[in-house]
Formats: sequence, structure tokens, C-alpha cells
Amino acid sequence: MEYTISNRMSTMRGSAIREIFKYAADPSVISLAGGNPNPELFPAEALADIAAKVLHESPVTALQYGITEGYGPLREAIKARLDRTEGIGTENDDLIVVSGGQQGIELVTKCLVNEGDVVIVEEPSFIGATNAFRSYGAKLVGVPVESDGMNLDALEKVIAENKNIRFIYTIPTFQNPMGVTMSVEKRKKLYDIALKNGILILEDNPYGELTFDGVKTPTIKSMDKDGIVMYSGSFSKILAPGLRLGFLCAPREIIAKVVVAKQISDVHTPMLPQLLATEYMAQFDLDALILKMRENYAHKCSTMLSAMDEYFPKDITYTRPGGGLFIWCDLGHDLDTLELSKAAIAEKVVYVPGNTFMVDMDKKCSSLRLNYSTMSDEKIVEGIRRLGTVFHQALK
Amino acid sequence: MEYTISNRMSTMRGSAIREIFKYAADPSVISLAGGNPNPELFPAEALADIAAKVLHESPVTALQYGITEGYGPLREAIKARLDRTEGIGTENDDLIVVSGGQQGIELVTKCLVNEGDVVIVEEPSFIGATNAFRSYGAKLVGVPVESDGMNLDALEKVIAENKNIRFIYTIPTFQNPMGVTMSVEKRKKLYDIALKNGILILEDNPYGELTFDGVKTPTIKSMDKDGIVMYSGSFSKILAPGLRLGFLCAPREIIAKVVVAKQISDVHTPMLPQLLATEYMAQFDLDALILKMRENYAHKCSTMLSAMDEYFPKDITYTRPGGGLFIWCDLGHDLDTLELSKAAIAEKVVYVPGNTFMVDMDKKCSSLRLNYSTMSDEKIVEGIRRLGTVFHQALK
Repeated sequence: MEYTISNRMSTMRGSAIREIFKYAADPSVISLAGGNPNPELFPAEALADIAAKVLHESPVTALQYGITEGYGPLREAIKARLDRTEGIGTENDDLIVVSGGQQGIELVTKCLVNEGDVVIVEEPSFIGATNAFRSYGAKLVGVPVESDGMNLDALEKVIAENKNIRFIYTIPTFQNPMGVTMSVEKRKKLYDIALKNGILILEDNPYGELTFDGVKTPTIKSMDKDGIVMYSGSFSKILAPGLRLGFLCAPREIIAKVVVAKQISDVHTPMLPQLLATEYMAQFDLDALILKMRENYAHKCSTMLSAMDEYFPKDITYTRPGGGLFIWCDLGHDLDTLELSKAAIAEKVVYVPGNTFMVDMDKKCSSLRLNYSTMSDEKIVEGIRRLGTVFHQALK
Repeated sequence: MEYTISNRMSTMRGSAIREIFKYAADPSVISLAGGNPNPELFPAEALADIAAKVLHESPVTALQYGITEGYGPLREAIKARLDRTEGIGTENDDLIVVSGGQQGIELVTKCLVNEGDVVIVEEPSFIGATNAFRSYGAKLVGVPVESDGMNLDALEKVIAENKNIRFIYTIPTFQNPMGVTMSVEKRKKLYDIALKNGILILEDNPYGELTFDGVKTPTIKSMDKDGIVMYSGSFSKILAPGLRLGFLCAPREIIAKVVVAKQISDVHTPMLPQLLATEYMAQFDLDALILKMRENYAHKCSTMLSAMDEYFPKDITYTRPGGGLFIWCDLGHDLDTLELSKAAIAEKVVYVPGNTFMVDMDKKCSSLRLNYSTMSDEKIVEGIRRLGTVFHQALK
């Protein structure tokens, strides 16, 4: 039997990051390739108590079918939190609970993108999102990212040159993979450009709470008086990713269609993770937990940057993130970081080559992504020392 | 702002069953419309203990990102169970854990069906599946179902008349909505027809374990020596649906692509539900739990059939299921069960009109689906008595 794969999926590959994870399984290898949050920060004991309690006291709610929109009290808690912490939510908006931020992005794409339609993405951008767009036959058009976010002149050029643009996908805060944050001025201008051209914005904000100095840049969604912004959020980086809990806040008409797509996809998000998040927010202090995360990641990021300052060749450039999980590093000199990853693996250290995050993943790329969130200080320093050796060798 | 929905989703509506559930929320209304398992049978105490234990003892496994294929020990436990209870699994097969049977069906469709391709479905069939096919632009072609399963002459005719047939979707055991079971002879013949024509079969078996007399008809997948059957299974009806746990067992090449689609859809199934199912199967007797379910549903089904024998007009026909959750009832006389549902709601009883399960949902239908799994004996009898009144009136 020969199996014919659909056109939309036939060219889709698994994430290259997964391939790299095979090497990372070797305990002697130091992985700077991941994107996992630090598991030491998971509130496991609290969640254990909550799980036992909700299964004892509300077994039917926890175990029977739920509604597609999400568990009512969780939706209300998220709406209240979004209003309080991000100034998000108007009469025109609605919210659906999804199985991780990834699902919100996939469902929105299924609902809005026809084959051949254009999705504008930051370049580099998160491969989970770009793959979701590709899997529905979207044509990706990239806009370069600068230290204060998307290059808006390039964006306007791209808009002028393309038709059937469905939305602009952006991670404005502590961007994956670059770690940079779009300035308030650019956010306002991006909003105006989108509005003027009748194009939606998909704002993805999984890292926004992980600000090292506590300063938060206003979300684009908080500026949305015209119903043009769809906002994707997640509990993965502020509670625990294994729960697979995210949410999408967007104009009612769009959410109504996303609810239909979600019903077709998996009926509803599992109840127990929804109940855990609801009760954790009700009984514990999520802001205090996030504060611990901020301090932890700020320390790790600073440790990695100090090591990079010490061990990396002087003409390599890298971002200095104000939050989130990633540092973006450009080797320049026409180097190929995919090719170079073999030398890194030989030195028992892995990173994610930059081509992974590009529209054209087959094109040579001199950049790479580094992650600091799960490693000990010692391993961060040792990993960077090993990488420094590889880079010095390559630049000889 | 005007929102343009993608072609594939623009005509998709929410399930009609959901609309009916609005009436069912009124406690004075007796709902025979649901498809939920009986929550009294959920092993909530055991799951509460397991949840607390795994979160205490394996917090990182329970809360960190997992792999897309599913939690290793759960995959192994499911494979072992499929081998033991269904004779399913060859060297050529692989298995992925999904977020409920619905997700396996949706992902397979995304991976295999191009817009305009044909999916052959039993008529009537499960709306969750038919909507998944519709949402990728499949052309549905129906094959009538008889008391011993699909009409295979009609199937051969449909195959001869159509091109680009991607697969045949069947629920051979205790079919939703009819409650009938395909005979072994028909299963063998269906397999041969599919093989001869190079067409895949998607076998959906969420109810197979719920056999009232303990007799199990061999699955079509157990006959699969040629790699043409994809098998969708679920924990929803044998453990608890709120966990959203299912699995798909199919040829390796297909599973490999489904894994990519699942990664794009939601990265992986939440870990805690996966750990609960794994530990429940390891520490408790799932077969004993299923035996309790069989007895419970056998009793409820028999109670409903007796009431139907007593209260329904004599020339109304209905199926007498050997398992599962549903009875299918045909009023004949060119009646319209969608229209008639208004009279039923006035009598404070609801069912699902048969048109919901048809390829052409707008066509008048004289059949309807009844469910007995969650109601008390008294409510089953009273609900059927009320329906009997409505039907006698309609047939006057």
C-alpha cells in the first residue's frame, strides 16, 4: 500500500529542534537548544493537593465532558487577569481556553487562512507558529526584526507588494528566538499600519510576564479599539507547560468560529488541567510565583551573557534580553550555523541554528538561538565556554 | 472591521446537538439527546490518589513538556492492551496518543484529505467525524447502514462512481448513532473491497468494549495484514471523557505524518491525564471497571427498550443494540424529526433529530437518536412515555 499525504502536509517536516534534542538526551551534552521552563519552579506540591481535592470534591466536573469554550470559572479568571495585568478585553472581545498557545495559533489559521493567502511574520520567528501557517498552505512573507522590534518600513513595503494578507504574526515581547522587545512607539505604529490596511494582527505573548526588571511594555491588544488584534496567551511559561493550557482573546466573531474549529479538533481542553489552573489562581499567588521565575531567569540570563562576554570572539553580536528565555547570536562572516552545529555537537554542546526560524529554512544562516532557562549556572558557563571554542576555531 | 473566514471553515456550524443541550440544561427537561458516559462509573477516588501521587513523586514528568507521540509507558500499555483485547498491532503499525478520539480523526484528515477528495461514510454517522472531514473540504459520500452494518453493494457502487477516495470511515461496533454492529462476514468483505480498490479504512471504535453480553466482534484492524486500516480508540467511554485521551494505531508512515500534524496542533497531549490513565491501568483493573459499565448500560438500554415497547406506536421501528450508548428509531410516515423536536421540547423531552447524522443535514429525516447512559431508570421510562405521547400525536 502506498500512502498519499495531503498537499498541505506532504512537505511538512517535524521541528528541527526535535532532532537536536536527540543529542541533548546524552547527559554529557550541554543543551542550550531547549525552550523549556525551569522545572524547579513548578508548584508541584500545590498542584498535587489541588488535583486530589478537585477529583474528590468535583469528580463530575473534572472527569465528564466539558464545554468547548473552556471551563467557565477559568475563562472568568483569565479575563479578570488579562484586564488587570495587560489592560486587555473589550465588549467586542471573547476568550476561548485552548490546549496551549500553539493550539490557538493553529485554530486561528484554520479559520482564517486559505491556501495561498499571505501571513506576514517576523524573521526570525517561532517555528511552531510558522509551521502552523505552512500547514494550511499560507505563503509566509518575512519582515526583519531589529533591537526594538519589527522593521516597519519593511512591513509597509511587504504590505504594498502582497495581496490577500490575512494577518501579521508578531511576538512583540521577549521575542522567540531573538529575545528583543518591540518599543511602544513601534507597537502603536504597527497597529495603525494594520488598521489602515484592514489587516488583522495575531499577537503572541507567552513570555511577557517574564520581565527581569518588572517593567511591562503595553500589549498591542491593549490598544485595540477597532477589533483588529487577536491575542494568544499561555500558562506554559508561568505555571507549567505539561498542563497544555493557553487561551485566545479576539473579536467575538473570530472566537465563535474558533470554537467550532476547536470542537472539531478535540471537543474541549482536558478538564483537570483547567481545574488546576483555576484553583491555583484562586488559592495561591500566581504573581508571587511569576516573580520567582523573573528572578530565576534574570540570574540565568545574566550568567550566560557574562560567560558570552568572556568566552565568545569579540566580533560576534548578541541580544541582551530584558526577559523571556532566549538570546539570539549572530556570528557574521558568512558562517553557516547549521553546518557549525556538527562541530558544536563534537564539543558536546547544542544550540538551535538560526535557519530554523526563517521563512526559507534551506537558506544558510549565520545566527543561532541560545536558551538559559533549565541549566545550572555551572553548565551555562561550561556550555558557553565550549561554544566559544567552536566559534574561535570557526573564525580563525 | 469585517472578518473573512477561510473557505474550509466558512460553512461549518457548531454541532446541532449543542443547541439541543441548551434545553437539556433545564432540570425539568429529560434529555435523551446526550452521548455522555454515566459519571457514577468514573473511578474518581482512584484517580484522585493517583493524581496526588504522580504530582508528588514525578513532578517534572507530570508538568514539563512531553513528547508529541505520547507518554512512553502509556503508549506501551495501550499497545499491550490492543494486542491482548483486540488482536491489533503489527510490525508495520505505530501508535500515537491523542487528545480524545476526535483529535485522531481530525489529524488523519488533515494529513490525508485534499480539498474535493472523497471520504466514504456510513449514513447515518457520527457528526464529530463528518464535520472533521467537511472542515478540510472533503466531499462526503454516504453508504446506508443495515442491521448488520454497511450495505456493501451500495459501497461498491459508490467506489465505482467516485474518484480520489481517500478512505472509508466506519464505526463497525455499536455504531453511533444506530447502535448496530457490522457482522464478521461484512467486515471481511469490507476489508477485501478496500484492499482491492487501494482505499484506506478508518475504523473508529469508541464503544467496542461496552458489549452487554461480553461477546466481542473482531475489529477490522485485527484483520489488517496489508497496512490499510487506521484504528481510532478512546478512553472516553471506558475511563472518563474529561481526560480527553484517545489513540490512533495505523501504518508507521501515516503515524509519522500525524505526529508532525499533532506537534503543529498542540505539541502534545497534556501529561497529567496521560499519567492518570497509565497508572490506573497499572494499579487497578480496567477490565473490572469496564464490566461494571457493561452491566450498567445493559440494564439502562433494556429499561429504555421495554419502555419503548410499551409507550411507542406499534409501527415505529428501532434498533436493539448489543452494546454502546445509542438506540436509533425510525418514525417513518414521511415525518420530520427536526420539526417534531419542537413538540418534544414542549413535552419537556429532547432527542437528536436524525438529519444531524446525514451527509445532507438539510434534508428531512424521519429518524432520531436516543441515549440511555446518564439517566435514572425512572427518567428513562418517563422520557420515553413523554416521547410516546408526542409520537402518537404526530401519527394521528
